[in-house]
Amino acid sequence: MQQASTSTITLIIAEAALETIPDKIARHPAIRNHSRRRQQKSSEILLDRSYHHAAMKRLSNSWKRGRPDIIHFALMEALCTPLFMNMMLKVYVHTINDKIISTADNLRIPKSYFRFEGLMVGLFKDNVIKSNDDESILMKLSDGTFTDLVDKIKPDRVIGLSTVGVQSNAQKVAENARDVDHSVLVVGGFAKGHFSENVTKSLGPTYSISNFTLEAHVVIARILYECEKLLEKGIDYEGNEKRRQIGT
Amino acid sequence: MQQASTSTITLIIAEAALETIPDKIARHPAIRNHSRRRQQKSSEILLDRSYHHAAMKRLSNSWKRGRPDIIHFALMEALCTPLFMNMMLKVYVHTINDKIISTADNLRIPKSYFRFEGLMVGLFKDNVIKSNDDESILMKLSDGTFTDLVDKIKPDRVIGLSTVGVQSNAQKVAENARDVDHSVLVVGGFAKGHFSENVTKSLGPTYSISNFTLEAHVVIARILYECEKLLEKGIDYEGNEKRRQIGT
Repeated sequence: MQQASTSTITLIIAEAALETIPDKIARHPAIRNHSRRRQQKSSEILLDRSYHHAAMKRLSNSWKRGRPDIIHFALMEALCTPLFMNMMLKVYVHTINDKIISTADNLRIPKSYFRFEGLMVGLFKDNVIKSNDDESILMKLSDGTFTDLVDKIKPDRVIGLSTVGVQSNAQKVAENARDVDHSVLVVGGFAKGHFSENVTKSLGPTYSISNFTLEAHVVIARILYECEKLLEKGIDYEGNEKRRQIGT
Repeated sequence: MQQASTSTITLIIAEAALETIPDKIARHPAIRNHSRRRQQKSSEILLDRSYHHAAMKRLSNSWKRGRPDIIHFALMEALCTPLFMNMMLKVYVHTINDKIISTADNLRIPKSYFRFEGLMVGLFKDNVIKSNDDESILMKLSDGTFTDLVDKIKPDRVIGLSTVGVQSNAQKVAENARDVDHSVLVVGGFAKGHFSENVTKSLGPTYSISNFTLEAHVVIARILYECEKLLEKGIDYEGNEKRRQIGT
């Protein structure tokens, strides 16, 4: 059954390859060089495979880490949708190191990577980013596993998006998401491989929406767009008065 | 009339805010500082409002320039679609300074901004990027106006996407594009304002696909996705044999 326009969608970018350079490799020559050139401490630089590939070999799960660019694209995709701008979408990032980032409603983040990196480094350092205008909280970082986050959100359904999921398409997945009051959509924030067992155990139905391996940002763009279209239809049925609520 | 699956779609990111630092402002203190810190010549750095805002005041049309991040997101969006990966989409960038960048079929560009910048700087310097493997041309830069590019492509229809266009939606625009053998979709590669008169004169129908002002990458994601869906429908009609042509 298609629900009314009040139903909620939450997006989790799970096991995101986002962290500052871990202490364990801070003394590696490649890191020290990069840090010196940037004139920044290693704790003030995001781990990035483009620069730290050699040093990353010492890290566990290294193939799933150090891709802040993927998170930048994925977050930007979600936060630029009318669904999010209309405050009908909540967005969380769960990182590979079990940190949870929550975002304020209608938040805008910079498209410039340098500014994004500065923002994320500040968040990992202070656990919070506040508005310069009114001190309201824009982003918050806390400890927690993927399961902790789902337990906190208490959704009716947790839908995974993965190349190993049941073959489907974005429209059908959106219909499935809108079939209950509150669905969580889960997209991986890493370059290769699949969700870990720790995430998989908290997932409900898991779908693949293409014959191609799609980038996280493309999956997010398509699913959220289809959710938005369904929502608009629902609002059509409820007449013009309600429509104004999601107008310009 | 819906055309067969052989019809072609071309995307032009027009008046793109992409260029290296112009000579005119190369001696500005802000540019010289930035250039020294990066240990690179100003001609090896992309003009970027995040860094060069103060110096950019001396440039004409400065409000429409210096946003390589926008082009990075827009290009990435297009090049990550199954439509492009299936070689059913051609992608061009026309820059604010009348340079035309053409891309090879099924090209992948880096999601890391630093690597993207390196690539673009090399392209502006050498006018070409070749594959390390087989010396084939991956990207090419040439002189030309938007009209020159359209004249070269010779499409049946040139469709503009703009907030000041006729109110429509992505699905209808895709239907309009697929209504002829070869359509060009035109999305602005700048942060604010509208297409210049030089672009507008070469546009056919121009549409707005949302009540919201959407980012270029969001417009691209939605239109190309809808084009892809129409294409799949068309191929359904033509039976399974044709379907395999756009399979995995």
